[in-house]
Amino acid sequence: MQHDTISTNAIDISRRPVSAEAFKDAFRRQPGGVAVVTADDGNGPAALTVTSVASVSAEPPLIVFSVSELSSAAPTILGAESIVVHLIDVEGLEVAKLAATHGIDRFADTAQWTRLPTGEPMYLGVGNWLRCRIVDRVLAGGSTLVVGMVLETGAPGELLAPVVYHDRTWHALGTHSQL
Amino acid sequence: MQHDTISTNAIDISRRPVSAEAFKDAFRRQPGGVAVVTADDGNGPAALTVTSVASVSAEPPLIVFSVSELSSAAPTILGAESIVVHLIDVEGLEVAKLAATHGIDRFADTAQWTRLPTGEPMYLGVGNWLRCRIVDRVLAGGSTLVVGMVLETGAPGELLAPVVYHDRTWHALGTHSQL
Repeated sequence: MQHDTISTNAIDISRRPVSAEAFKDAFRRQPGGVAVVTADDGNGPAALTVTSVASVSAEPPLIVFSVSELSSAAPTILGAESIVVHLIDVEGLEVAKLAATHGIDRFADTAQWTRLPTGEPMYLGVGNWLRCRIVDRVLAGGSTLVVGMVLETGAPGELLAPVVYHDRTWHALGTHSQL
Repeated sequence: MQHDTISTNAIDISRRPVSAEAFKDAFRRQPGGVAVVTADDGNGPAALTVTSVASVSAEPPLIVFSVSELSSAAPTILGAESIVVHLIDVEGLEVAKLAATHGIDRFADTAQWTRLPTGEPMYLGVGNWLRCRIVDRVLAGGSTLVVGMVLETGAPGELLAPVVYHDRTWHALGTHSQL
């Protein structure tokens, strides 16, 4: 990552980045679908709630999300070979809140999670999950973009209302929100 | 990007990717905030509606989104030095629909767009926009991840309802959708 050199030249000034405050103010408004990523790099399970999961490619089946270096779960997720991405609907909201809470053991309640036969920790009660192998890690400022290839998907039943995070609030989509 | 070799070994089989159909079925349900990316690589303007824009880092201010190689706008966006990312609220819905429509000239109505002093094409009527310099392009299957550093932001007025795309339908967030 190359950073612009600060310069008093007018053209160069227009190439300087905006402040962190201006950036956060713009993005506070941007909604994102909610997902919980779990992994175990051999040192115990870790979980992280993210709003950056996106589909990248169907063939091969690839997703991307970003992990901040400030996240306590970052070393485990970035050090794992494979992860589970839980796509959160209203039945999974408690899992998303749990994995977004600081300073707690996110795996203290052993009735709330299990392990897949392949070893990855997985929360129960989220039907729409993706087991992924990490195929690329790209440094981007204070975060790392993680590209995952989907190896296995859960068998979600009926389509429940998905959860979106926006302006520090959880929202549910449904016929009530359709335009 | 390394692909797994197909093997009859049981452990290796568990590392094979899922089908495109299974992948699409899982992601059809995942909501995404809506954004329109515009650029001009010197050969005329191009526009693309995406649901993959995410905030990556505040310092430096970085965003990411993905562009499919199947998109008609891909060569222009990937060839440009800088782009405009319009974060779409209900007042910008028509712009999102326009930039998602195939087989039309998305810049035919000259009253609908302008150029920034720095040259990038920009649609009118979307207050929350980000001018970005492309700082990284990462191949991922049939798409490219684009990392942009935010150089300038619009001055959005009041907070209007943002638009989310889910299961082939547009949704608006507001107090009606809060959990």
